[in-house]
Amino acid sequence: MSDERLVAGVDLGGTKILTLIFDAQHNVVGRDQRPTDDDDGGPEAVIRRMAASVREAAGNRTLSGVGISAAGPVDLKRGVVTTPPNLKGWHDVPLQSRLSELLSLPCTLSHDADCGAVAEHRLGAGQGADNLIYVTLGTGVGGGLILDGKLYNGTSGSAGEIGHMLVEPQGRTCNCGRRGCLEAMVGGAYLGLDAQAIVAAEPQGVLARLVKEQGVEPDARLLSEAAAAGDSSADAVIHRAGAYLGDGLVNLANVFNPEVIVLGGSLLAFGERYFGPAREVLQRDAFAQPLRDLRLVNVQLGSDAPAIGAALIARDQLPPA
Amino acid sequence: MSDERLVAGVDLGGTKILTLIFDAQHNVVGRDQRPTDDDDGGPEAVIRRMAASVREAAGNRTLSGVGISAAGPVDLKRGVVTTPPNLKGWHDVPLQSRLSELLSLPCTLSHDADCGAVAEHRLGAGQGADNLIYVTLGTGVGGGLILDGKLYNGTSGSAGEIGHMLVEPQGRTCNCGRRGCLEAMVGGAYLGLDAQAIVAAEPQGVLARLVKEQGVEPDARLLSEAAAAGDSSADAVIHRAGAYLGDGLVNLANVFNPEVIVLGGSLLAFGERYFGPAREVLQRDAFAQPLRDLRLVNVQLGSDAPAIGAALIARDQLPPA
Repeated sequence: MSDERLVAGVDLGGTKILTLIFDAQHNVVGRDQRPTDDDDGGPEAVIRRMAASVREAAGNRTLSGVGISAAGPVDLKRGVVTTPPNLKGWHDVPLQSRLSELLSLPCTLSHDADCGAVAEHRLGAGQGADNLIYVTLGTGVGGGLILDGKLYNGTSGSAGEIGHMLVEPQGRTCNCGRRGCLEAMVGGAYLGLDAQAIVAAEPQGVLARLVKEQGVEPDARLLSEAAAAGDSSADAVIHRAGAYLGDGLVNLANVFNPEVIVLGGSLLAFGERYFGPAREVLQRDAFAQPLRDLRLVNVQLGSDAPAIGAALIARDQLPPA
Repeated sequence: MSDERLVAGVDLGGTKILTLIFDAQHNVVGRDQRPTDDDDGGPEAVIRRMAASVREAAGNRTLSGVGISAAGPVDLKRGVVTTPPNLKGWHDVPLQSRLSELLSLPCTLSHDADCGAVAEHRLGAGQGADNLIYVTLGTGVGGGLILDGKLYNGTSGSAGEIGHMLVEPQGRTCNCGRRGCLEAMVGGAYLGLDAQAIVAAEPQGVLARLVKEQGVEPDARLLSEAAAAGDSSADAVIHRAGAYLGDGLVNLANVFNPEVIVLGGSLLAFGERYFGPAREVLQRDAFAQPLRDLRLVNVQLGSDAPAIGAALIARDQLPPA
């Protein structure tokens, strides 16, 4: 008899909650999206909205399990979201047990980058690879590790923080407190700081003009737009960030000897201006043997990946059908 | 019936070949050591000496398998030692099949740091740990990874090159061609260069005096001796190297969330002058969660570890008793 059980994957983001319902063949059979609104009522209110989102997406169908994807440090041993960077006022929230209680369903809790890695490994750009590193390049820089075919979580679930490898001891201080982390040198939030600096230094420049025209703050997106429109300072910043990204990729190639590195996140939009220098540094500096084994590819599943991966992880935890 | 099969572990070093014979209870029941002499006859002569060493150590007893530990890049898919840094003139040598042929025995081939990791995990300082990183600090800097209880080799066996993570983009060029690798900033061979520079800059200094007294070249060992005798330049070099080692350990803590990092190699003799700053940086810069999970310990098995690990790996490959 075929497995007809349904599972939900819920991606808890800083601005939205996305729920997808999957059947055993990985078809999406239900969907709900709503604002996170974490300023209004704190964690309990957010968890109630997550429960409402799951109920709405499921409709009148019965679920067998729910997988949660959350950003930032997750303590898997305790099922706790420790200090999510994108949710103000959250500290050591027992998200897994509380949502499980509200829904009367078994829940799993995973780091969003881990969910993304699982999704791309099973259903996306990294299918068939034994060793895969998933790298998200957005506001921050995250990573998920599939090693010998399985998600590697580390001792309590915090493995994969590849954004917090050192690439520039003279560099910017990262949110984590360390100076010159990969994230601080190549992540979107920090490139936004570079964009601000360019506007301040070149008030007549292309970037400053775009800021005025669009009536927005200078950020990573605008930096990219300015570079494309011929702003040489913006171009240089993105190029330099790409080279640092290359340094990070060399570390990953040498340390993990992976089959595939899957690149995702909003900074994919930077294109060759960012990834060209990264590939150049990778080719120049990585060991020959891991280079031979390595494919560098883009994500296939886009922003649904964390919810998809969370659902896959939840299904893995179900008892045999 | 108890398993009475014997296996050999052979450690192929740059200067010596060490063979240990083990019974199923991991007792050493035979031992041979002889010079590698790789200038005399090339790889074939060395492999013949390895075979002779195994035969001598085994005596009139029958072996069931042989594990080889070799330095430098090893291609596990092909059983080939690609470009060992410590053996001149070796390139893509099919060490595994050739030794197997000479001994008419199944052979396994592994990287020496991987063998060390397996040995310390099963029988040494890391027993019981699911996630262990073995760091060798000697002439170079190597690493072996035990993840989820198992040796992680990567796609073709080159994983674990933690000495070739970036820690200082403005730093020394590493033998691997990359600038500022951990190995180039903290490894013994490179600290020897610092020792030479100190002698040249301070011909009346403590280090220069030791060089004259002992009639040797300035190297890492002498640097340490000079620091202990009050040479402030030597002390500063070791302290700085220790801080860079700390940067490398932070990377490992953040990326792997390991239970234990096992430190080994000849630079253990540097003591607190080197490991004090390393621990300080680790405590300051690593994420709180992986720090909580982590123990930092020294090896227990010393220089026999690679041969021990090679034998353990060989035994794992035997058919059930």
